[in-house]
Amino acid sequence: MIGAPDAGPGQILAAVLTPLTADLAADHGRLKLHCRWLLEHGCDGLTVLGTTGEANSFTVEERLDILEGIIEGGIPGGVLLAGTGCCAIPDTVRLTRRAVALNMAGVLLLPPFYYKGVSDDGLFKAFADVIEAVGEGRLRVYLYHFPQMSGVPLSRALIERLVNAYPDTIVGIKDSSGDLAHMTSLALSFPQLDVFSGADDLLLPLMRKGGAGCITGVTNVAAPLADAVRRRFRTADDAEAEQAQDALSRVRRTIAAYPLTAALKAVTAHNWGDDGWRRLRPPLMPLAAEAEAELIAQLQGSGVLSQRGPGAG
Amino acid sequence: MIGAPDAGPGQILAAVLTPLTADLAADHGRLKLHCRWLLEHGCDGLTVLGTTGEANSFTVEERLDILEGIIEGGIPGGVLLAGTGCCAIPDTVRLTRRAVALNMAGVLLLPPFYYKGVSDDGLFKAFADVIEAVGEGRLRVYLYHFPQMSGVPLSRALIERLVNAYPDTIVGIKDSSGDLAHMTSLALSFPQLDVFSGADDLLLPLMRKGGAGCITGVTNVAAPLADAVRRRFRTADDAEAEQAQDALSRVRRTIAAYPLTAALKAVTAHNWGDDGWRRLRPPLMPLAAEAEAELIAQLQGSGVLSQRGPGAG
Repeated sequence: MIGAPDAGPGQILAAVLTPLTADLAADHGRLKLHCRWLLEHGCDGLTVLGTTGEANSFTVEERLDILEGIIEGGIPGGVLLAGTGCCAIPDTVRLTRRAVALNMAGVLLLPPFYYKGVSDDGLFKAFADVIEAVGEGRLRVYLYHFPQMSGVPLSRALIERLVNAYPDTIVGIKDSSGDLAHMTSLALSFPQLDVFSGADDLLLPLMRKGGAGCITGVTNVAAPLADAVRRRFRTADDAEAEQAQDALSRVRRTIAAYPLTAALKAVTAHNWGDDGWRRLRPPLMPLAAEAEAELIAQLQGSGVLSQRGPGAG
Repeated sequence: MIGAPDAGPGQILAAVLTPLTADLAADHGRLKLHCRWLLEHGCDGLTVLGTTGEANSFTVEERLDILEGIIEGGIPGGVLLAGTGCCAIPDTVRLTRRAVALNMAGVLLLPPFYYKGVSDDGLFKAFADVIEAVGEGRLRVYLYHFPQMSGVPLSRALIERLVNAYPDTIVGIKDSSGDLAHMTSLALSFPQLDVFSGADDLLLPLMRKGGAGCITGVTNVAAPLADAVRRRFRTADDAEAEQAQDALSRVRRTIAAYPLTAALKAVTAHNWGDDGWRRLRPPLMPLAAEAEAELIAQLQGSGVLSQRGPGAG
């Protein structure tokens, strides 16, 4: 559970963008402002250094520096999940240890993602080796199932083995498959796990089936819309919840027609009036100016564009 | 061109296995012996820290240490290609710089492989940023096209842009697609590139179409068989070359029915009489004992099993 435990069902986490300086280093100042804005506008928690955060485009040293910078910037560890899953287990161990030392709420763990078609035995050992090497009772692991990007799905049998072996450590899963039936089935089969959707359009349907909420990139610009879905779900007004979900889903569809991280950085740059937000590390690239103009035009009236910029609160 | 320039067409490179100590660190001693054996048994060159070498299961520090250990072990830099392509460009730059400083013949560059569906512009910038940051005129780059594993194919348009922008630097490509038509088309379209097959069964067909040779994992145990194909191709005896290729292809088919790196380590352990060779880093796992026994039985008479072990060779 991230955020206030008594607030009721439904948790909204942003998969936080990583802003960059002119030389493509992480920009701690912009990141801190953005994290604060998200926490003030509907997010219960923040996942840093996930897919949307370009985690794998940073070295391990840079990732450690980003994690420390966020804590030094005053963001409480208790609302943070750190993406720490690398291809090399010693890297994953090092990052995970640091997240625990920084009192972060947990880590979001990709499987080692270079080798495809690996066995469940091999994946189990990869996760188990990390958990054993970190050796911290307070470690909390959220598994990260994103087969389209990682190329390494987490099977139901693997999840079951992990949950049975480490019942106090494995506490959740982010399912970015985009497949509601899969998420629902995880929520039903593993009631001890917080199941998060990686797709905004499935937030309400998944909460209705007992899911925990969402961890998404679109939340970077649509946190208030996701918050509205969750609040209306809590008040049990089905029609209003549906309406809020429709507004969020429309935003997602519009943004997801473009390369996601680039589009989210473009909208953030627009909202903050801050060109620096458009930078990405290769192989990701900023949107072309025409594409950005088109995207911004399509988002008029959606509720995610701000005249004053989120910096104004 | 790796190896002796006047020897004639066809180059055989092993994608070298990385042996491990009991605590799963790289075993420099075993690696040196193995590299020497390969160079004495038909290999013109060695690619270290590729897919078969479990490169991405090691940290950058460990990879730097492996590269240095091989040179310190007396393997000449001129026969070595280092796999240096990581997800994070600063990591790729650091490894590539070291390979150049160690006077290695070149680097084998995977694209950044976490993000899928990225643009050619983004991939071009990723490769260009590495080449520019390394800033060494003597850098030689072999592109690594392995869509089934990386999930990031290198398009013909991208290769053309790279070759045009860096004609003295981009000198070859390893095509592990397993698609002879694709390799042949690359060899015809880019006569300035050395096109290597990542599949042993396509060695002879690709050499006939102007390809450079092969860089394969199976060569770890079948270097003399690959060498025989190349030698018979040079003497232009088609029937004998076909026969040699058939023997090599049979070995490949047998081994490729098992997880490749595990199977190659099992055969090497068998040949050396050295249990230590069976170790892999998760998520890869050793073959089960029954599977290994079955594999060894199937390889009887194939020419890759040694009673004395390659160490005696």
